[in-house]
Amino acid sequence: MSIPGQLDPSPRLLLGPGPSDAHPRVLAAMATPLLGHLDPQFLAIMGETQDMLRRVFRTKNTLTFPVSGTGMAGMETCVVNLIEPGDRMVVCINGVFGQRMTDVAQRAGAAVTTIERPMGEVFDLNQVRDVLSKVRPKVLGIVHAETSTGAWQPIEGLGALCHEWDTLLLLDTVTSLGGVPVAIDEWGVDAVYSGTQKCLSCPPGLAPVSFSPRAVEAINRRKAKVQSWYLDMGMVQRYWGEERFYHHTAPISMIYALREALRLVLEEGLETRWARHQCNHRALKAGLSALGVGLATVEDHQLPQLNALRIPAGADDAKTRKHLLDEFGIEIGGALGDWKRKVWRVGLMGHNSRPNVVLLFLAALEQALLVQGVKQTPGAGVAAANRAYVA
Amino acid sequence: MSIPGQLDPSPRLLLGPGPSDAHPRVLAAMATPLLGHLDPQFLAIMGETQDMLRRVFRTKNTLTFPVSGTGMAGMETCVVNLIEPGDRMVVCINGVFGQRMTDVAQRAGAAVTTIERPMGEVFDLNQVRDVLSKVRPKVLGIVHAETSTGAWQPIEGLGALCHEWDTLLLLDTVTSLGGVPVAIDEWGVDAVYSGTQKCLSCPPGLAPVSFSPRAVEAINRRKAKVQSWYLDMGMVQRYWGEERFYHHTAPISMIYALREALRLVLEEGLETRWARHQCNHRALKAGLSALGVGLATVEDHQLPQLNALRIPAGADDAKTRKHLLDEFGIEIGGALGDWKRKVWRVGLMGHNSRPNVVLLFLAALEQALLVQGVKQTPGAGVAAANRAYVA
Repeated sequence: MSIPGQLDPSPRLLLGPGPSDAHPRVLAAMATPLLGHLDPQFLAIMGETQDMLRRVFRTKNTLTFPVSGTGMAGMETCVVNLIEPGDRMVVCINGVFGQRMTDVAQRAGAAVTTIERPMGEVFDLNQVRDVLSKVRPKVLGIVHAETSTGAWQPIEGLGALCHEWDTLLLLDTVTSLGGVPVAIDEWGVDAVYSGTQKCLSCPPGLAPVSFSPRAVEAINRRKAKVQSWYLDMGMVQRYWGEERFYHHTAPISMIYALREALRLVLEEGLETRWARHQCNHRALKAGLSALGVGLATVEDHQLPQLNALRIPAGADDAKTRKHLLDEFGIEIGGALGDWKRKVWRVGLMGHNSRPNVVLLFLAALEQALLVQGVKQTPGAGVAAANRAYVA
Repeated sequence: MSIPGQLDPSPRLLLGPGPSDAHPRVLAAMATPLLGHLDPQFLAIMGETQDMLRRVFRTKNTLTFPVSGTGMAGMETCVVNLIEPGDRMVVCINGVFGQRMTDVAQRAGAAVTTIERPMGEVFDLNQVRDVLSKVRPKVLGIVHAETSTGAWQPIEGLGALCHEWDTLLLLDTVTSLGGVPVAIDEWGVDAVYSGTQKCLSCPPGLAPVSFSPRAVEAINRRKAKVQSWYLDMGMVQRYWGEERFYHHTAPISMIYALREALRLVLEEGLETRWARHQCNHRALKAGLSALGVGLATVEDHQLPQLNALRIPAGADDAKTRKHLLDEFGIEIGGALGDWKRKVWRVGLMGHNSRPNVVLLFLAALEQALLVQGVKQTPGAGVAAANRAYVA
């Protein structure tokens, strides 16, 4: 049998819902020779990574570190450590990731109550207050940035509301961290997870998490063992904490990469980074509007880093995406659920949120629509985006 | 607050129980720009990786792929998919990893029976037959290469024995795969997991697994949902199978790395690679013997890739390891459990199983013993190893 050839992927510009392109400095860090997972130098690197994660999450939580798995492992880590069989949990569903959290919670033995909003919309405090008062759950789970719809959930006030009912607030920031403001302590979030492959511009493979002192207390009060050995915070924190007690071999190269990605975030500054994401989003939106393409997410709650584009009449979902991939190496995402074939998901995440990307994407989309005979004013998208940048 | 400086770890030679050094070609692959996790080119890379994994595992099992986590996630994947609450499982314990499997199985709701052997020894078929006939478990779990002791468990005949009792055979090959013969189909193994960071010379972060048709049937017959969403084979196999149905974002760079590592294994050839591990082990052992250092593992069952050295009288565990690390950048491992401070663990895994490494290690160990005043014939270790190589 033959052996496959050398790795040689075509160049890509990853503008789907994630992964986004890793920053070149992050890719270079991945190739760094290994240290042992208990080497004093590696322990220092772990500590630096934790410190930087705290700054990016805006938290003082001691129990802050990256789980050795992708974003969904982060979700599962939070749920299985907070939930014991029979515990009540409320999950807010306005897209795919709320649905998944329900499934994960039920597998952990939670009695789950769901509240729902249509795709592309967000929850308001009254709806949450209502369910908290009726159910009095141990945990309320909600998604900050719904990757399936581009909806941007406001979180201000939610922590205080949960704590009135003695409920822990669990927040999904997979697509938000590093792209829009996240303020774990200010918001009173008790458990949060994220991913590396979205606005942190790092390859997929780690799930940063953080637990508040209130959440740690709840974990310490557990009667049942956490059902997952691999994700058991009681044990994992002994490795990431001062003891440095061996639990499992850390994914060393991925931690090198995350450390470099966090350095890039802090070098830029969080506020500057958030403003950059807004600026490029506005230019993209202006350009799309000029091409006759609107957003499917409710106005005022559109994430700058993940844009849900209504596919215009006359354009075919798959044909357009294939044209962009084949002619330009540009990947954008299709949609899930009810939005399938009606919506494209276009990410401008982290390193990819920049004018070069916005202008190229608008120009390429114009061509993809042109070959399908979709009516438009030639050059209008790029022109409108440029006006937005120069304004 | 300041931002940590550029990543700049000291050069290391990783001769502990793992991770071992990644091969330079594997490190280079890690720095390759990303593809999307549903890109046709990435799906092809996944397929090639699975094909090569099957060749290295020596199996035709369809359900063969790398789990998105480290080796312990592989153990947990096998256990939580095979076990339903109340199922009987037998675990063979002759070191740390058997103990861990017991914990993982109990968390999955298994009724666990253990059989034990002292550290450094292995099980024989009679002992296994005895417990199978008494317990009639659904699953028997055993470790092929005990990383805590360097014991090499014979597996021939075990599959047939398990199947007589309608028991599934679960095998830990974390430290064996790529270093000593592994033959999943020939041995009748039903579920197997491994890690990337040992004899495959790839960074830690993935856990190759494989399930026999018999195991897949058992999974399909389950009444209860798998307790872990992240590790649920029923869902994960839809992404790694023909459907390519999105489950979680694959750790793309790690899969690039594993693909390159498997290419290296197949380019060398499995038999050649196993013989190389034996050859360097024999030279190391000859050299150690000349330095007055014996192995703690029972004769005839010593793994070539993981050597458990009895710390000689007059040498201090921590001082010796510190000398090797500080003066030579060489990492070796301490021991666990009863062997703590009495044994060093020295890995010659994958890329690191080569004469350069053996001779340098023997020379460096001689110096570390010399500074502690441990009596020895100068140069005897290197000389004996060279005689073994030249013989």
